[in-house]
Amino acid sequence: MRAVDLIEKKVQNGELTTEEIAFLIHGFLDGTVPDYQMAALQMAIVFNGMTDREATDLTMQMMHSGEIVDLSDLKGVKVDKHSTGGVGDTTTLVVAPLVAACGGTVAKMSGRGLGHTGGTLDKLESIPGTQTEIPMDRFRRIVDNIGVAVIGQSGDLDPADKKMYALRDVTATVRSIPLIAASIMSKKLAAGADAIVLDVKVGNGAFMRTQKEGETLANLMVEIGNRVGRRVIAVITDMNQPLGLAVGNALEVKEAVELLSGKIPEGDPLYEICMLLGTKMLRLSNLAESDADARKQLQDALQSGAGLKKLQQMITAQGGDASYLCMERIDGLLRVREQVPVYPEREGYLYAIDTERVGTAAQMLGAGRATKADRIDPAVGLVMKKRVGAYVKKDEPLCILYSNDPEKTKVSMQAFREAITISDECPEHRSMVYNVIGDTN
Amino acid sequence: MRAVDLIEKKVQNGELTTEEIAFLIHGFLDGTVPDYQMAALQMAIVFNGMTDREATDLTMQMMHSGEIVDLSDLKGVKVDKHSTGGVGDTTTLVVAPLVAACGGTVAKMSGRGLGHTGGTLDKLESIPGTQTEIPMDRFRRIVDNIGVAVIGQSGDLDPADKKMYALRDVTATVRSIPLIAASIMSKKLAAGADAIVLDVKVGNGAFMRTQKEGETLANLMVEIGNRVGRRVIAVITDMNQPLGLAVGNALEVKEAVELLSGKIPEGDPLYEICMLLGTKMLRLSNLAESDADARKQLQDALQSGAGLKKLQQMITAQGGDASYLCMERIDGLLRVREQVPVYPEREGYLYAIDTERVGTAAQMLGAGRATKADRIDPAVGLVMKKRVGAYVKKDEPLCILYSNDPEKTKVSMQAFREAITISDECPEHRSMVYNVIGDTN
Repeated sequence: MRAVDLIEKKVQNGELTTEEIAFLIHGFLDGTVPDYQMAALQMAIVFNGMTDREATDLTMQMMHSGEIVDLSDLKGVKVDKHSTGGVGDTTTLVVAPLVAACGGTVAKMSGRGLGHTGGTLDKLESIPGTQTEIPMDRFRRIVDNIGVAVIGQSGDLDPADKKMYALRDVTATVRSIPLIAASIMSKKLAAGADAIVLDVKVGNGAFMRTQKEGETLANLMVEIGNRVGRRVIAVITDMNQPLGLAVGNALEVKEAVELLSGKIPEGDPLYEICMLLGTKMLRLSNLAESDADARKQLQDALQSGAGLKKLQQMITAQGGDASYLCMERIDGLLRVREQVPVYPEREGYLYAIDTERVGTAAQMLGAGRATKADRIDPAVGLVMKKRVGAYVKKDEPLCILYSNDPEKTKVSMQAFREAITISDECPEHRSMVYNVIGDTN
Repeated sequence: MRAVDLIEKKVQNGELTTEEIAFLIHGFLDGTVPDYQMAALQMAIVFNGMTDREATDLTMQMMHSGEIVDLSDLKGVKVDKHSTGGVGDTTTLVVAPLVAACGGTVAKMSGRGLGHTGGTLDKLESIPGTQTEIPMDRFRRIVDNIGVAVIGQSGDLDPADKKMYALRDVTATVRSIPLIAASIMSKKLAAGADAIVLDVKVGNGAFMRTQKEGETLANLMVEIGNRVGRRVIAVITDMNQPLGLAVGNALEVKEAVELLSGKIPEGDPLYEICMLLGTKMLRLSNLAESDADARKQLQDALQSGAGLKKLQQMITAQGGDASYLCMERIDGLLRVREQVPVYPEREGYLYAIDTERVGTAAQMLGAGRATKADRIDPAVGLVMKKRVGAYVKKDEPLCILYSNDPEKTKVSMQAFREAITISDECPEHRSMVYNVIGDTN
C-alpha cells in the first residue's frame, strides 16, 4: 500500500477502505506517512469529503491512536457534553454540576480557549488553586465521590488528533466537516463517555456559519457515535451573539454562579441552553422519563442550591478555593484596573453583533490567546449590557470592558464598536435552538 | 504575509497576487514555507485551478528560481520543442536535426523517461559515447557550429520546479493543468528558447486523457508564453497508440534513422507528426513563408540526407559514435538475448491499444524506469507490427519483444497482451492531429 495512491483515490472521490485509513493514520503517527502527504490528503478531504463510514473509521483510528480512558468501573452512565466553540458559552460550569446534582455522572475532559473562543479549563483556572491537570486515578476518585470533575486531556489521549490538528491549523484544512467530526468524536470516545450531548454552535461567532453546515456536522457526529454504540444527541444553537452576557474567564464563572444562585430568569438564552443540554444529558443517563421531567429535576437542583453546592464541591476536590463561588465573594475574582463602559454611537435598535469580533475584543484585553503560548489574564473581559433586538439610547452602555491596561482598553473598545450594528429597523427575532438531532425518544 | 492565509485564499477560490505567489515560491525554496504547506497549496490548486495570470506569475517565479540560460549571442531564433510525454515518441531525434539542416537553431534541453514514457536523453545515450551532461559553453559552441544540440537540464535550472515536482509526485498532485503548464513553461523559458513548439499528447498513453484537457493545457501554455513575449504554438496529437512502431531506446534511435534515411513513407504517423512539428518550428524561426514551404524544406532535407547527416554531426559533437547512425550499422545497437514475437489470441481487428500498458510492457523489459534510480537497458524494448485498425491473423505477430531476460519477457508479454483489444468490429478512424493552437499566421 502506498500513501500516494490513497491520496489519489481521494482526489478521484473514491472511498478509502478501513485498512487504508488505518494505514494512513498509523503511518502518520510513526512517520512513514510524512506531513506533506497527510496535508495533501486532508486538503483532498476538504474538497471531496468522506462518507459516513470513512469518517467513522477515521474516528476509530484516531481514538485508538493513544490511551483509552476506561470509566466502566464508575457507577452510572458516564455522560459528557461538548460545544463546538463560541463566545460567552459558560454552559459547562452550569450544566456539569447541575446534572451531577440530579444523580448524573459527568467525567469530563475539556479544552483551552484559542482565538476568539473561550475554553472551560481557562475559566476553571481563574478560581485560585483550581487544578485541571489531574492524574487519572484522582480524577476517577473525584467523579466517584461527587459525580463530577472537569479536567484537561491527558497527554496520551488521541495523539493522532493532536498531530493532525496541528497540521490542519497551518495548512488551511480546518474547515472540513468530516475532519472536525472525527477530531471531536475521537477525543470524546477516547475519554470514556458512554453518552454525549453535542452543542453545535451556528452563526457569526462559531466555526459553522450556517444552520445547514451545523446540521451536516451534527448529523455526522451522531451517526459516528451510533455506529460505535454510543448514545449521542446534538443540538444546533445560535451563536449570532454571545450566549451569556459575560465574555472572559472569571466573568463567565461569575455568570455561572449567578445562574446557579437563581439570579438569572427562565427565558434567558444561557439559562435555556443550559436547561436544554442538561435535559438531554439526564435523558441519555436514563435519569429522566421525559424532557419535562428532566427540566423539573434541573430546576429543582438549581432552586435548592444543590447545583451550586456541586460546583463548589468539585472546585474544592480539584484544589480550588470554592469560597469565591457565591454571590457575596465572587467579585473578588474580578479586580481590574478599570471598568470602562462602551456607549453606542447613535440611538436605535441593536441590529446585529459580529460575535467573533466581540470574542476578539475580549481576547485583546487578555481574556484569550492569539497563539497557544499566550498567557491569559483571568479577571479581564467584557460584560454585555444589551442583547440583539434591544432599543439602545446614547447614554446607555452597550457593554462594560474589564481591563488591566488602558492601551488594551482602547484597541478592544475599537474592535467592540466595529462588532456592533445599530439600525432604525428592529431585527427579526432569531430562535436560540435551531434543531435537535439524534433524540430518538 | 502568512502561507496559511494564502492557502486559505486558494481554498476559497480566490486569486493570488503576484507578490503572494513570489512569497510562496521563495519561501518554499528557502524552507520558510515547509513541504506540508506547499503540498496543501498544490492540492487546493488541483481542485480550484489558477487564473491565466496566476499561472503566468507562477511560471515566472519558477523560471527565475535558478539559472537562466542566455542564448541571445547565438545567431537566429532559438527554437525549442517539447512533448508532454508519450510512448514511441522519437520525434526529437528526427525533428531537431531536420530543422537544423534547414537553417534553424535548436538548442534543446531534454528530460529522461519515467514510468511508461520514454525520454530523449536515454535514447541519445543508447548510442555509445554520447554525452548529455555537457557544460554550457561547450553546448553553445556545438549549437553555434552545427545548429543543434540536445542535452540534459543543468542542475541549477529551475530548482523550484525540481522541488515542486518531487513533492507533487508523492502527494497525488501531478494532474493539475496550471501546475503542469508552469512546470513545462518555466523550464523552457529558463533554457533560453525564443520560440517553442509544444506537442500536447492526448489519449490512453498520455498524461492528458481527453482532447478537452489537452486543449486546456495547450491554451494555457500558449497564453503563458505570449504573456512573457515568447512565440508558442501547441499541437494536440493522438496518443491512443504508440506514435512510432518502436518502443525502447536504441529501437527508437533506429526508427529515427530509418525516417531520416527515407525508409518511412509519407502518411505514417511518426512521419507526419515530425513534419507538423518541424513545419511549426521553421515558421516560428522565420525560415519559411508558409506551412507548405516549410514542409517542402523539411522533405528536401530528409531526401538529400542532410537531416541524417546533421544527427550524425550532433552525436559526434556530443562525443558519441555516429558510425552506428546508418541503416547498415544501426542493428549493432540492438543486440539482445532474444527476440520474441507476440501473436494475437484470436483473429480480428486490432480495435484498441492501452498505450500506457504498452509503455509499461517495454519498461518491464528494462527500457524504462519505475523509479528515478532504476538503470535502463538501451537495447531492449518492443516493435509494434500492427497499428490500430489492422486486421490481424493468429499467425501474424502483433509485436516483437527485444529482451535480455526470459523472465522479463514473460511478464512483459503478459502486460502487452492485456494492452490489446481484438474485435470483429473495425474501429473508427482517429485523427492524428486534433488541433493546432497559437498559430496566428
